[in-house]
Amino acid sequence: MIFVEKLIELIKEKKSVVCMGLDPRMDNDGQIPKYLIDNFNKPNEIITEFNKSLIDNAYDLIPIIKPQIAFYEKYDALTALKETINYAHKKDLLVILDSKRNDIGSTSEAYAHSNFKVYGADACTVNAYFGIDGVQPFLDYIDKGVFILVKTSNPSSREFQNLFTAEMRGIPDTQIETTAKEIKLERNYIYMARLVNKWGKNLTDFSGYHNLGVVVGATYPDELKRIREILKNSFILIPGYGAQGAQAKDIKYGFKSEGLGGIVNSSRSIMFAYHNKNYPPEKFGKAAREEIIDMNKKINKEIGI
Amino acid sequence: MIFVEKLIELIKEKKSVVCMGLDPRMDNDGQIPKYLIDNFNKPNEIITEFNKSLIDNAYDLIPIIKPQIAFYEKYDALTALKETINYAHKKDLLVILDSKRNDIGSTSEAYAHSNFKVYGADACTVNAYFGIDGVQPFLDYIDKGVFILVKTSNPSSREFQNLFTAEMRGIPDTQIETTAKEIKLERNYIYMARLVNKWGKNLTDFSGYHNLGVVVGATYPDELKRIREILKNSFILIPGYGAQGAQAKDIKYGFKSEGLGGIVNSSRSIMFAYHNKNYPPEKFGKAAREEIIDMNKKINKEIGI
Repeated sequence: MIFVEKLIELIKEKKSVVCMGLDPRMDNDGQIPKYLIDNFNKPNEIITEFNKSLIDNAYDLIPIIKPQIAFYEKYDALTALKETINYAHKKDLLVILDSKRNDIGSTSEAYAHSNFKVYGADACTVNAYFGIDGVQPFLDYIDKGVFILVKTSNPSSREFQNLFTAEMRGIPDTQIETTAKEIKLERNYIYMARLVNKWGKNLTDFSGYHNLGVVVGATYPDELKRIREILKNSFILIPGYGAQGAQAKDIKYGFKSEGLGGIVNSSRSIMFAYHNKNYPPEKFGKAAREEIIDMNKKINKEIGI
Repeated sequence: MIFVEKLIELIKEKKSVVCMGLDPRMDNDGQIPKYLIDNFNKPNEIITEFNKSLIDNAYDLIPIIKPQIAFYEKYDALTALKETINYAHKKDLLVILDSKRNDIGSTSEAYAHSNFKVYGADACTVNAYFGIDGVQPFLDYIDKGVFILVKTSNPSSREFQNLFTAEMRGIPDTQIETTAKEIKLERNYIYMARLVNKWGKNLTDFSGYHNLGVVVGATYPDELKRIREILKNSFILIPGYGAQGAQAKDIKYGFKSEGLGGIVNSSRSIMFAYHNKNYPPEKFGKAAREEIIDMNKKINKEIGI
């Protein structure tokens, strides 16, 4: 089944646009509970056990999960990643692998294969600094979803992404310096959104959306609004809810009038909800479930589903 | 030992600036020889055997190797990656892991750990679309090297990297649209080089170079020249030699007068040299060695070492 088609079906069925991020952290207090680390010896086992419990508590409430591959690489636990994705599929959840891979075409082919065939994801995130060469191999998997980084949620995202790009309309490169007044100024992230719009032009739509989406941080609501206007047929993956500071009111501009067009990711606020809610570590699954129910309620009120 | 210090030592000792890319490909003719694929059952074993033979034939001629992690992920062969890096270290070679990782700070921390501690690389490549937040966790490993993507070797790199960035000198954001004439225009990749220059300002130098380098494709010699002028204390990793079309004369602008400041990567032209030289597959190591000797000769003539 086509990624975006299935995503829309699950959003409508579960009345939820929440994506549960699965970024296992074992280093500090308030992360994977110590009793799990003690009971299971190896990172692969600890993480698989933790993730399965979270999925058991969440699968009927949400359409999709998003494992961040960096943490599986950190703990040398890619087996846990594969088992998590496999388990999520059994529970009828979709999976975005957050890998942000990027390279020249022939290397991106290898990354697309690893993301979709080795790890088994339904979609992944891609950094498009290389241009279409590095993106096309992912789009060649026509049933899979691809989310291009446009405006990221971190504070220093402004350093490069917010630079003003001088768009040249029909002016040869050699005359640019002398014709500055004719230049239309836009920020880099807006130009990236426009590139995505161009790349998506010939993709097949399902209920008004195609498989090429973007990533825009919930921490930047004004930017989210601008990008929603540019990309009418793309889903927006919106990270940064919760631990990174964004709230339900910040994400509403990522959605279209029918309440579709966005998915809102939260990782730490769900996974480690037991800490904020002062539950004993053994109740981490229950705490995560309550946090998701709360997120669904707050977000659905804002987007009107 | 500090990455850049060791790199300079090995370049002088071996009189070579060649980096051997190790991007194992098993899909088509002219790649990893069929007899190896038949003799060794599993990708981890096939790739480890192939890489070790290449290292045996190359280690006395070059300072450094660069495995491209995408191919190890594609074949689910990260054990081969770790064994290759470990073996290269035994042969006194440095290792750049070509991973182009990128994310928000707390996630980049996990990537830096995996690149340097799990896989064991001495340096890695990083995509800096996120700004300094996503780069700093790599720089925090003060003995390791970091190479930021500036101008990549692929054809569509122009699509985003060559956009003109309108640099605002002391003009508030709100007045920008009305003061277009005061704007200084530069391309995105130049601005990225300037960011790298800024981030490198406080790093410790060894013989005039610090651990923060950049990646600039050999396929763009004019851009290489510009970037060399901006980044006086950075090593430039120059990919694209050979299979991607660049020759020895194209890379000379990446070097400073003493013949230092650059390393030239070739992957396919070395690994699969037996094919171009019409050697039997069993002679792939000998063919690779001859190709490296040829590269050293041609490049050293251009850069004057």
